[in-house]
Amino acid sequence: MTATFTQADILTFAQWMTGDYSNWDQAIANPPLFAHIRVCIRPLPNQLSDHGIWLYSEQAYDFQIDRPYRIAVLHLVLAADRIEIENHKLNDEESFYGAARQPERLAAITAASVVKLPGCNILVDRTPTGSFVGKIEPGKKCNVHRKNQDTYLVHEFELNQTNLTTLDRGYDPETDERVWGTIAGPFEFVKQASFADEVKAI
Amino acid sequence: MTATFTQADILTFAQWMTGDYSNWDQAIANPPLFAHIRVCIRPLPNQLSDHGIWLYSEQAYDFQIDRPYRIAVLHLVLAADRIEIENHKLNDEESFYGAARQPERLAAITAASVVKLPGCNILVDRTPTGSFVGKIEPGKKCNVHRKNQDTYLVHEFELNQTNLTTLDRGYDPETDERVWGTIAGPFEFVKQASFADEVKAI
Repeated sequence: MTATFTQADILTFAQWMTGDYSNWDQAIANPPLFAHIRVCIRPLPNQLSDHGIWLYSEQAYDFQIDRPYRIAVLHLVLAADRIEIENHKLNDEESFYGAARQPERLAAITAASVVKLPGCNILVDRTPTGSFVGKIEPGKKCNVHRKNQDTYLVHEFELNQTNLTTLDRGYDPETDERVWGTIAGPFEFVKQASFADEVKAI
Repeated sequence: MTATFTQADILTFAQWMTGDYSNWDQAIANPPLFAHIRVCIRPLPNQLSDHGIWLYSEQAYDFQIDRPYRIAVLHLVLAADRIEIENHKLNDEESFYGAARQPERLAAITAASVVKLPGCNILVDRTPTGSFVGKIEPGKKCNVHRKNQDTYLVHEFELNQTNLTTLDRGYDPETDERVWGTIAGPFEFVKQASFADEVKAI
């Protein structure tokens, strides 16, 4: 895959990625191995820079949809021959819980609200069928503290207009052994609502 | 562990085992790796034989608590030097969905309603701390069809008065490779309600 990407591709990518997702079908089909997870990704109403596209992402158990366990601010940027997603931590996360579904609250996020996470860029390419695929940059530098130890995150995803599959695993930086994750396979999210129009508007 | 068990032990075991369980704390502490699972175990109001104790068990996602993905009728019996749980399939399962929390409906279960599952007995022993531990009988004969293939079930549990931990995994009968299950570890259930009184009454 040696695609050359343009600003139009970033726009398409952002339009496809934004949405309210659920893995309900997967959970029902594979009890009890998959929690029912919700992912909601929206553009920031106030973009934090004049290049690329800024998105806000929440991931939560459906039963605690207003207490997401993972929040990220994503900056989609055009790199030499691909799209990159720069991952950012959001300061004062708790004050934004639930804002993915109340996007007017996202207007409070400014450039001072976020901190770029080193080593956690996602490198995005495109498959022959048109879907976007991404994986975390090499280097084992995206640190996640879990089970009382430091691990490095391995993240992969595939995205088309309706489906998002994600796989997250943590590995021991010394031994490269897997510390957390699932052998049941990636989460398979299906888009329940699209926010592509909000991307067009920015 | 070479305990010798008596009828009194079976009664204690049944009183501890019956209950309405949730792994909420575990799910909250380990997102997104554990679904929120509910287990509800009750004595059958009409015991199906004159020895041992018969229980009914439902396991369900909390978000589909009235559509359990696993139903079992369990017969606790005294074996030579231990307790055994004989696992039974329930005919016409769907007509009992939700009956774990509407126990009057369980009165419809008769000896003709159940079929013993060969190779699926659970052998129960007791630890020095008093908790009961069980594992499926040797032989790799407890067949579970999952992911379009036959697997043999490996089941383990530990039970005390308030907590039940369970581990279920399926292995390929030819290669002994794990086909399904979780590396995140066993489910850790905490009893929310006890039905010990219902056991005493039978």
